[in-house]
Amino acid sequence: MLSGHSRVPHEKCPAIREVLDLVGDKWSVLVVGTLRDGSLRFSELRRSIEGISQRMLTLTLRNLERDGLLTRTVTPTIPMRVDYRLTRLGRTLLIPVLALAEWSQKHGAAIQEARRKYDEKLK
Amino acid sequence: MLSGHSRVPHEKCPAIREVLDLVGDKWSVLVVGTLRDGSLRFSELRRSIEGISQRMLTLTLRNLERDGLLTRTVTPTIPMRVDYRLTRLGRTLLIPVLALAEWSQKHGAAIQEARRKYDEKLK
Repeated sequence: MLSGHSRVPHEKCPAIREVLDLVGDKWSVLVVGTLRDGSLRFSELRRSIEGISQRMLTLTLRNLERDGLLTRTVTPTIPMRVDYRLTRLGRTLLIPVLALAEWSQKHGAAIQEARRKYDEKLK
Repeated sequence: MLSGHSRVPHEKCPAIREVLDLVGDKWSVLVVGTLRDGSLRFSELRRSIEGISQRMLTLTLRNLERDGLLTRTVTPTIPMRVDYRLTRLGRTLLIPVLALAEWSQKHGAAIQEARRKYDEKLK
């Protein structure tokens, strides 16, 4: 079914490479997926994404904002409140990102099993 | 449309995190995408994926093999010939990976434009 696909010329399309530099990154995928139900504050994102450091979350959010995938809204309360929300463009990215998450959920056990067998053979 | 989705509990499902460690990596995505039409030799993969080093390609292929996503077939000719091919499990990953590549191709220009505007504002 897939053999009919024409080869995507990665090397001839810098945009694909650059976008993969962005979305082919675990933290970006997790941030986009976590924002799927609406806006979240920095602290809520940090709590939802286990293992992400404050620095890495800040960096990931800034890159996603620069790429037009999310908006950053500052409410000048004390303490200052900052909300992040996917843009329309960001929401279109949800579709392949959620497909990837669903794939992971469906096939995670098979991968664990493959890893176990592979490591077993090396012993 | 997506607001009805239930929140995927990333933190409660290590499989998702581990799989994202794998597929949320630019080189893995590119290797899986490049193998979509059938088997390729190491040298063919290296030529098709611009910018990947020999070491990074070796590492990426080994991880994908360990995860049961591709097979490595050695033909004992001189020089030795090594072919890589997606497994059935690996081919199921093609679907979300190609969706991501299509998204990149469709929205790459919008991202470039968003970056240009963002950088312009910082000047």
